Amino acid sequence: MTATPAEHDAMRLALDVARRGPRGINPQVGAVILSPAGEILAEGWHRGAGTPHAEVDALSHLSPGDATGATAIVTLEPCNHTGRTGPCAEALIAAGVARVVYAIDDPNDVSSGGARRLRDAGVVVESGVLADDAHALLDSWLTVQRLGRPHVTVKWAQSLDGRAAAADGTSKWITGPAARADVHRRRAAADAIVVGTGTLLADDPALTARDVDGSLLAHQPMPVVLGERSVPEGAAVRQHPLPFVQYPGDIAAALDDLRRRGVHRVFVEGGPAVAASFVRAGFADEFLVYIAPALIGGDMLALRDVGVTTIGEARRLTVRGVETLGDDLLVVAAPATEGVS
Amino acid sequence: MTATPAEHDAMRLALDVARRGPRGINPQVGAVILSPAGEILAEGWHRGAGTPHAEVDALSHLSPGDATGATAIVTLEPCNHTGRTGPCAEALIAAGVARVVYAIDDPNDVSSGGARRLRDAGVVVESGVLADDAHALLDSWLTVQRLGRPHVTVKWAQSLDGRAAAADGTSKWITGPAARADVHRRRAAADAIVVGTGTLLADDPALTARDVDGSLLAHQPMPVVLGERSVPEGAAVRQHPLPFVQYPGDIAAALDDLRRRGVHRVFVEGGPAVAASFVRAGFADEFLVYIAPALIGGDMLALRDVGVTTIGEARRLTVRGVETLGDDLLVVAAPATEGVS
Repeated sequence: MTATPAEHDAMRLALDVARRGPRGINPQVGAVILSPAGEILAEGWHRGAGTPHAEVDALSHLSPGDATGATAIVTLEPCNHTGRTGPCAEALIAAGVARVVYAIDDPNDVSSGGARRLRDAGVVVESGVLADDAHALLDSWLTVQRLGRPHVTVKWAQSLDGRAAAADGTSKWITGPAARADVHRRRAAADAIVVGTGTLLADDPALTARDVDGSLLAHQPMPVVLGERSVPEGAAVRQHPLPFVQYPGDIAAALDDLRRRGVHRVFVEGGPAVAASFVRAGFADEFLVYIAPALIGGDMLALRDVGVTTIGEARRLTVRGVETLGDDLLVVAAPATEGVS
Repeated sequence: MTATPAEHDAMRLALDVARRGPRGINPQVGAVILSPAGEILAEGWHRGAGTPHAEVDALSHLSPGDATGATAIVTLEPCNHTGRTGPCAEALIAAGVARVVYAIDDPNDVSSGGARRLRDAGVVVESGVLADDAHALLDSWLTVQRLGRPHVTVKWAQSLDGRAAAADGTSKWITGPAARADVHRRRAAADAIVVGTGTLLADDPALTARDVDGSLLAHQPMPVVLGERSVPEGAAVRQHPLPFVQYPGDIAAALDDLRRRGVHRVFVEGGPAVAASFVRAGFADEFLVYIAPALIGGDMLALRDVGVTTIGEARRLTVRGVETLGDDLLVVAAPATEGVS
């Protein structure tokens, strides 16, 4: 990977404009066209299925010949596949682009191969620039492409010693307002929110994403109930702006159905048993552990049995970050080995 | 609290020179004498019981008259008490010092009152400068003065979900080499290291402070065994350079005896039951929780029952810091309310 400072800056811009597009079946992608001197000629982004890809969108702002010898900066490997739109690799070649710098490879068998196609046509291709940022932007889309299932975030709140409640079951509130607000922001970024029937019956959660004043945020995750027990008539989840979906408990089948419904990002707030089920099944791509600075002791654990019998089987994680939220800590982690399924 | 930048700098120096003195029955104290123009005239520190206090040590480097109109910067309130040495407040007054800036008040009834004595003699007195640093330096001494017992650090290692071992009891090694090295450094800074008989019989710990190459560090904590079961003939603790002490299990009585033996700083590594006993009894001044990025689940908790039955009784902590040690995290915390005893 060799890229100039101007190309790095342009990649940052491309990642920014990528975010203007909708999250959905297609990835959010941004593109910036730089002149041979490094000036920004055009930018573009993908506005959703059936609309031009980012590279084509950017090129559409230029007159014929403007991109001759130019460099295209793209957040995802240009596609090599004719869907509802033509292959971007061909569009870049046709426009006379001399160099393409992209962040991450296209993981999709159908559309990948753009880099090879470009090189075959004599275009210089570099990849890996700001790859971590592009990965973070596309994590749920990449999971769907690679594993055929939605990206799963498993969240729980615990005391420092790993308890979710005191012996009598009381837990309100272990964590403080800043941590709760953070949870609601993340709920709003999810397509679905999963809770087990145990937690549903015990806590009667609304499963909405709310602002600090209690009002609903603009985007709401679809409420999903895991388990066979029926949802009571008066349950708060029945007041959710979206109708809830219930699955008996087979997580793989539930995730498969959710993917078919267009869900890319699942937020599991299920309670200790449901969280453990996702860990046990290997369906957890990200962990959000909100840690209250308190010791509780006793048996009310935040995470139940995850199928580990000896220390070598412990589910190793990689800590991606530790944030301070009021008095609380948030540990963001992911499985230490990628591609667990 | 009003102090000049030069006085702040001098306090930092005074804290540095204080550390040259030994930790022991007397506090580590440093002093710096500044000229009216803010130049450093002398520095001094306390070298242990029976030797001159820091202020007197600093003044001893000056000729009569040199300190007239000077400012004395001291890490602890000058004493007002004639022990084996005369009161420092009188020495400062006699030397003609016009201003005294100190970090923290003397908590000891016998020796306190120095600030008042100085003010009565017309000396301008300021306090609270770098008080947090001075508190950190003297935490164990302050605990002994205030609570009449040694300062207690309770340490454990756990997975993110609060487990100390897998279901079969295996736990080697939950945390990595950087975390273990940190533990050994902290052991070397303690006067005593406490382990329960359960952990002693299960793990046969050496209870020594070791360097990364396994060699013994210069200072070793006294090994202390809590519990009634006898220490096996071949136990590793019998190879410790210091003879071990055993107490049946009454923590208050054990701490009392340790204090009488001159122990100011106790490091509890005792295992889940002993850690919980210290928490339950309110004898934990500091917590060091080494968190391995792993999920284990199951019943092998790092901290047992701490006597909390409902969430309002949770032992609230204040997080003093979070450190990254290799792949692991270290959360340093203290009881949220000071002076728990």
